[in-house]
Amino acid sequence: MNRKMIAFTIGRILLAEAALMLPSVVVGLLYREPETWVFLPAIGLLLVAGGVIGMRKPQNTMIFARDGYFIVAASWILLSIFGALPFYFSGRFSTFWDCFFEIASGFSTTGASILTNIDPLPRCILFWRSFSHWVGGMGVLVFVLAIMPLSEERSLHLMRAEVPGPVVGKLVPRIADTAKILYGVYTGLTAALVLLLMLGGMPLYDALCYAFGTAGTGGFGITNAGVSLYNSAYIETVIAVFMVLFGINFNLYYFILIGKVRDAFRSEELHVYLGVVAAAVLAITLNTYHLYQGAWETLRYSFFQVATIISTTGFATADFANDWPAFSQMILVLLMFTGACAGSTGGGLKMSRIILLFKTSHQEVHRLIHPRAIQVVRLENKPVDHALIRTTLSFFVLYIAILTGSTLLLSLDEPDLVTNFTASLACLSNIGPGLGKIGPTGNYAFYSSPSKVLLSFAMLAGRLELFPIFVLFNIHTYKTKSAS
Amino acid sequence: MNRKMIAFTIGRILLAEAALMLPSVVVGLLYREPETWVFLPAIGLLLVAGGVIGMRKPQNTMIFARDGYFIVAASWILLSIFGALPFYFSGRFSTFWDCFFEIASGFSTTGASILTNIDPLPRCILFWRSFSHWVGGMGVLVFVLAIMPLSEERSLHLMRAEVPGPVVGKLVPRIADTAKILYGVYTGLTAALVLLLMLGGMPLYDALCYAFGTAGTGGFGITNAGVSLYNSAYIETVIAVFMVLFGINFNLYYFILIGKVRDAFRSEELHVYLGVVAAAVLAITLNTYHLYQGAWETLRYSFFQVATIISTTGFATADFANDWPAFSQMILVLLMFTGACAGSTGGGLKMSRIILLFKTSHQEVHRLIHPRAIQVVRLENKPVDHALIRTTLSFFVLYIAILTGSTLLLSLDEPDLVTNFTASLACLSNIGPGLGKIGPTGNYAFYSSPSKVLLSFAMLAGRLELFPIFVLFNIHTYKTKSAS
Repeated sequence: MNRKMIAFTIGRILLAEAALMLPSVVVGLLYREPETWVFLPAIGLLLVAGGVIGMRKPQNTMIFARDGYFIVAASWILLSIFGALPFYFSGRFSTFWDCFFEIASGFSTTGASILTNIDPLPRCILFWRSFSHWVGGMGVLVFVLAIMPLSEERSLHLMRAEVPGPVVGKLVPRIADTAKILYGVYTGLTAALVLLLMLGGMPLYDALCYAFGTAGTGGFGITNAGVSLYNSAYIETVIAVFMVLFGINFNLYYFILIGKVRDAFRSEELHVYLGVVAAAVLAITLNTYHLYQGAWETLRYSFFQVATIISTTGFATADFANDWPAFSQMILVLLMFTGACAGSTGGGLKMSRIILLFKTSHQEVHRLIHPRAIQVVRLENKPVDHALIRTTLSFFVLYIAILTGSTLLLSLDEPDLVTNFTASLACLSNIGPGLGKIGPTGNYAFYSSPSKVLLSFAMLAGRLELFPIFVLFNIHTYKTKSAS
Repeated sequence: MNRKMIAFTIGRILLAEAALMLPSVVVGLLYREPETWVFLPAIGLLLVAGGVIGMRKPQNTMIFARDGYFIVAASWILLSIFGALPFYFSGRFSTFWDCFFEIASGFSTTGASILTNIDPLPRCILFWRSFSHWVGGMGVLVFVLAIMPLSEERSLHLMRAEVPGPVVGKLVPRIADTAKILYGVYTGLTAALVLLLMLGGMPLYDALCYAFGTAGTGGFGITNAGVSLYNSAYIETVIAVFMVLFGINFNLYYFILIGKVRDAFRSEELHVYLGVVAAAVLAITLNTYHLYQGAWETLRYSFFQVATIISTTGFATADFANDWPAFSQMILVLLMFTGACAGSTGGGLKMSRIILLFKTSHQEVHRLIHPRAIQVVRLENKPVDHALIRTTLSFFVLYIAILTGSTLLLSLDEPDLVTNFTASLACLSNIGPGLGKIGPTGNYAFYSSPSKVLLSFAMLAGRLELFPIFVLFNIHTYKTKSAS
């Protein structure tokens, strides 16, 4: 491992976090909130830590894949520790681990909260909470890559480790340019959403916070009532549509921008994703028809809930955990597994992995029927090599292993299995609400601190797609000479 | 597909089932039960159907793997349909689907029951119910292979499709001899268990039925009280130890028989299996200590429950679904996934698959740390090829897919998610009891007929390890010329 280079990069990331706290300070100053001071010691500590850790620019800037995974995992944990400080200094949270859970939930775009009463919190704190979704959605390292000149090979390692999905491609030859394009599309879509929400009567501050939560597919609200506060079919529909849009691979938006519209709409993953959305909305509409008044209202609630879960955002306009029939709940649980498209800000297993898992399994059955036929699994019309299939299948195994392990450990703390299972799933898939006690009207406050730390790591592991966290906690990572 | 050869083999299997009903007739005659007649029309129908279907011995006896999977899947479904007839004729069951569920549960060695009151049932019926476990445990086709002279290639295809586990090996050069050895070990162990149970004061009839349920890792009892009726620590311990023994790969017993004791005890799967048993017993003992009087009693109950679930038998001496803490319940749920060893009569994913899944996933992480290192996954000290890894990973994907699909469909019928999830898992892994309404004191009677048929297919799919059922229901199986 190239320790010097790792330290230098992590130092730069901490400095970036200090800069990312400034908008919240501006919000606090504008609203003349006395709590604004809480950001100052946090920013100070970040500047000192970032400055000291990243002090020396190393001569050898060469890093390997392992180092990339290590940097991503370590820096996300550090970002969460430092990001929790404003919450901690505000005195509005009971313990430091509550603050850590809340900001890890923010950066990982989960949206799970330990807050039982959001209304009395100052705006600067809630802004930081929602803004962390926007930062975490596209990725802090992608941000760093976009603004800092780094070598190509190093950049690709970092990008691979942070961007979700089985295959990470460069849109343009230079990584820094790819990162800029991604952040450009991201910012543009977010700005469009802010405008549309304001057209629906939302104040600028609210529109910004909900746009951050939607764009990052996070799900933190800024009031106890959440999106339902506005009681507006227009606002709900705009948010629902944008949740679906932010669950689509960002590469497709780039294709549209450069005129390759047909390529974008030909995406296999897009077809499956939209097909699943349509099927789920239809099934839930039929299943919950008796709960609402007429087809349109039923459609409004089922579309919003499907969009929020499949995009792994977690806003809610219906208390599906308490009011919906078991069949509709189970459909939502299945969507919690699948998640959105690769290369989007959404979490979960990702549609392209689901497609690969099904195709591979189907091929296995086919191979029993025609043992001598030569068969190739294809994704987006390209043949998929054995290594990627194995990685995808292993990813699935690790996902299920973390899910069951987490459910087991939580059961030491809380007796309800449905709560524990959906809490583990909702955190690992970066959704937020689940069933039982952690439904849309519930929260994670009742869990003990060890359980909250466990779930925080599940959120970070889910956001970084497991492998970086496994590399960080694998003894072999540290057993190697610094040169190899 | 070689249709003539398939028909001939299935015909022979139906004739074998007619013969397998004779012991129940003997029991009925010995106890002078008027219900004994119910077997006569069933046997008659089997003789006619078996005779007609298997009438013509085909000239071309060549079959392919596809045909083997087809034969196994089709014949297990037919065995269940015909095997349900004595139940149906007895008039003690409400619908034919209840009878089908009960015998599919028997043959698949699940032990899930729709009976709410077992005590008043005639002994010949209960004997057939328990005997179906013994028949299903080692496999009907293995039985046919042992007693009928078949060609070698054909036999291997059939054996591969029916015997559980990722790798099916021949113990001796001839398949028929391998099948005879397996049935010999099976019969010997069962006889030893019958003797030990009678030494504990069990009547012969009871000892036979419980030995069938234990040997096949099925779990049907013959009274409402089940094993607890005898209130004997000796009987419970003997059954618990034999449940663990029947969960071990039968090849190891053969190795011991021919003097290769050291080879048998060196088995990696055996070590993991016994290690998991020990760890689970320890954890549950600590977690349930407050429920029982002293360490020995706690150990007695935790060992029995762990043995019954990991071996996928399903007898119970404690109502873990209602009385045990959530952590112990979750450990049992995890054991429902793992199941016992490959090549045993137990169900579940099988320990060797779990080992392969973990090793492959671990290797994926290792490959990120050392991308250039050449790594081979080894099982039982032998390198495992890519094809087997992919089949194992696909098997896991299909397992989870059936599990979630079944849970989704059951939720149309029953609102409790824990009941639906553990019912699907307990049927797919061939265990029997789960949590919620289908715990040790519950039963499957409340489900609707469509749900019962769904669970029956889950049981058969689990027993045959999925692939035969997928081949049976795959359109490509029928799209091929009969010669290829």
